[in-house]
Amino acid sequence: MFKLYYAPGTCALASHIALEEAGAPYTTEKLDFKSNQQNSPEYLKVNPKGRVPAMVTERGVLTETPAMLAFIAQRFPQAKLAPLDDAYAFAEVQAFNSYLCSTVHVAHAHKMRGARWATDEASFVDMKRMIPKTVGATFALIEHDMLRGPWVMGDTYTICDPYLYTLGLWLEGDSVDVSTLPKVLAHRRHMEQRPAVQKVLAEEKR
Amino acid sequence: MFKLYYAPGTCALASHIALEEAGAPYTTEKLDFKSNQQNSPEYLKVNPKGRVPAMVTERGVLTETPAMLAFIAQRFPQAKLAPLDDAYAFAEVQAFNSYLCSTVHVAHAHKMRGARWATDEASFVDMKRMIPKTVGATFALIEHDMLRGPWVMGDTYTICDPYLYTLGLWLEGDSVDVSTLPKVLAHRRHMEQRPAVQKVLAEEKR
Repeated sequence: MFKLYYAPGTCALASHIALEEAGAPYTTEKLDFKSNQQNSPEYLKVNPKGRVPAMVTERGVLTETPAMLAFIAQRFPQAKLAPLDDAYAFAEVQAFNSYLCSTVHVAHAHKMRGARWATDEASFVDMKRMIPKTVGATFALIEHDMLRGPWVMGDTYTICDPYLYTLGLWLEGDSVDVSTLPKVLAHRRHMEQRPAVQKVLAEEKR
Repeated sequence: MFKLYYAPGTCALASHIALEEAGAPYTTEKLDFKSNQQNSPEYLKVNPKGRVPAMVTERGVLTETPAMLAFIAQRFPQAKLAPLDDAYAFAEVQAFNSYLCSTVHVAHAHKMRGARWATDEASFVDMKRMIPKTVGATFALIEHDMLRGPWVMGDTYTICDPYLYTLGLWLEGDSVDVSTLPKVLAHRRHMEQRPAVQKVLAEEKR
C-alpha cells in the first residue's frame, strides 16, 4: 500500500492520476500549504525537500514527479502506462516529462515562488510580468513540436498525459492565451473524459 | 552510431561520460556557444529547444539529460549503469537525476541565464547575488541527505555519478564554500580517477 502526499493545485495531481490509472493500492494525505504544512518538522522527516509530491512505499520514500511516474508504470506493467520494452520509446516519454519538470514547471514557479531565486520585491514583479510569455513559450513548443495527439505520444496513453494535463491546468491562471493551443485544449478534454481523472479530481476537491 | 551534440562546460558532459562508460559507439559535435551556434537554423532542426545536449540515434533525436542517461543505461545493460531489474532502485536513481535537472541546474542557471525569467538588469543582479546561497543549499541537501558514498547510490556506480560530477564542477564558479561539502569533493576525486572520465575531459578540452 502506497501513501501519496499531495496538495490541491500542485503537480502531485499527475502522480495521483497515474496511481489511479495503474490500479495501484494507495492512500493519500492532503497537506495544507496555507499553514505551510510542507515545511512542518513531521513532513520534513518524510521529504526533507519540503515539497509535494512524496510517496511512501514499502521500501522507502520516493519524490520527483518524473521518477514517480516511471516507477508507477514499471511497478504496474499490466496498466501499460509506458513503453517498457522499448528503450528509445521509453526515453521519449522520459524526455517529455523531464521537459515538463525542469522547464515548464520552473517557468510557472517564477510567478509565486520567486523567493527561491531572488530577494527584491522588484525582481518578483519583473518575474511575474514575464509569466504569460515564458510559460506560453514552453506550451507553444509542446503544441507545435511535441504533442502528437490525441495523447502526447500519439495513439497510446502514457505517463506523459497526466503530467501534461496537470501543468496545463495552470495556463489560464498564468494568463496564457489558450486559444493559441488547440491541441493542448483538446488533450485536456480527452483527459477529463477518463474515469480515473474524474475520480481523482473529485477526491482532491473534497 | 550515436552523435552527441555538446558544448564544453555544460551539462552535456554527463551524457558524454555515460556514453564512454557504456562503451557505446558514438561521435561528438562541439557547438560554439560564443557564436550562439545552439540557436542556428541548422541546430534548431536537430533540437528546437536550442540547448545541449542532444543525441542523434538511429530512431531520432533525444534530449534532456535524465532521459538520455536512463536510455544509455538501458541500451547498454552490460555496462550496469543503473539497477534495471529493480523498479524501486531505478526510481531512486531517477529521483536523484530529476533533482539535479529541475532544482540544482535551475538554481545555477539564474547566474547567467536570468533573461529566461526576467527582463530588468536589477533582477539579474539580485539573482546573481543569491547564487552561492541557492546553489549551496541544493548541494548541502545532496551532501547530507542524498549522496551515500563513495558513489551516489552507495557501492555501485550509476548514471547519477557523471551527472552529479558535472554539476559539481560549477561550485567554485558559483562561489559556494566547497569546504562544507567533503563528500561531494571526495566524489569528484573518485570520478577523476576513472579512465572514461579522463578520456572525455581530455576530448572536451581539445
